[in-house]
Amino acid sequence: MKIKQSFITAAVLSMAAFSAQAQFAKPEDAIKYRQSVLTVQARAFGAINAMNQGTVPFNATAAQTNAHIIATLATLPWTAFGAGTENAKTKPEIWSDAAGFKASSDKYVAAANALETATKTGNADQVKTAWGALAGTCKQCHDAYRK
Amino acid sequence: MKIKQSFITAAVLSMAAFSAQAQFAKPEDAIKYRQSVLTVQARAFGAINAMNQGTVPFNATAAQTNAHIIATLATLPWTAFGAGTENAKTKPEIWSDAAGFKASSDKYVAAANALETATKTGNADQVKTAWGALAGTCKQCHDAYRK
Repeated sequence: MKIKQSFITAAVLSMAAFSAQAQFAKPEDAIKYRQSVLTVQARAFGAINAMNQGTVPFNATAAQTNAHIIATLATLPWTAFGAGTENAKTKPEIWSDAAGFKASSDKYVAAANALETATKTGNADQVKTAWGALAGTCKQCHDAYRK
Repeated sequence: MKIKQSFITAAVLSMAAFSAQAQFAKPEDAIKYRQSVLTVQARAFGAINAMNQGTVPFNATAAQTNAHIIATLATLPWTAFGAGTENAKTKPEIWSDAAGFKASSDKYVAAANALETATKTGNADQVKTAWGALAGTCKQCHDAYRK
């Protein structure tokens, strides 16, 4: 039973990887895409951090706009880590520990959605806390899966 | 009065350009950012086009998700065309005809929002029509402002 379950899990993961890869004509397209998504998110992330740090005044509307950008794109980068899309920044654990990578990206998505929810309160402290939690998921994933 | 209005318009445009530029530490950051936004949008745009062309079956949810990505990012690229951010793809008209460039990007934003509205109907024909209108605004801007 356990073996059967493992086989099904492996088959589903392989199909998911194949499907994600098949969405891109070339591996370099997938790499460019995931880097682009992360670049757009990083800027929105930085805009909220500037408010948290007091570099710019807290602006509830701007916080919400930027959090919505992050949340809207949160699921997208992970579709572009199909087999054969290794580059200088990727650790092999992305593929050898696919379940861990998936769990890590799921945490990121949940934290991105929580940040958007926090910005809707208009409360700067709640935004700061939720931003910190999201930053934690970035770091955890980078430590484990990025060179 | 007309002169005064022109002066104010010019001053506001300069401030807008300065502000947009000031948001990026380096011109290459602005270029990377706008290219990243357009790369993410292009993929969502292509996903809807594949449905329009029948390459993949029409999927109302996927159409809406992709249109929401496009609409969420629609205003972002234009903030990254500050003075000093010329590159191999930019025509000088982006800056010499700033009002025309602004009008062109406004049309794009409106068409992106209209596409999202169309996807909410779940009607494939309406999505196709709205997608075509958006594609028209891309082409118009590329013809006028992209090398």
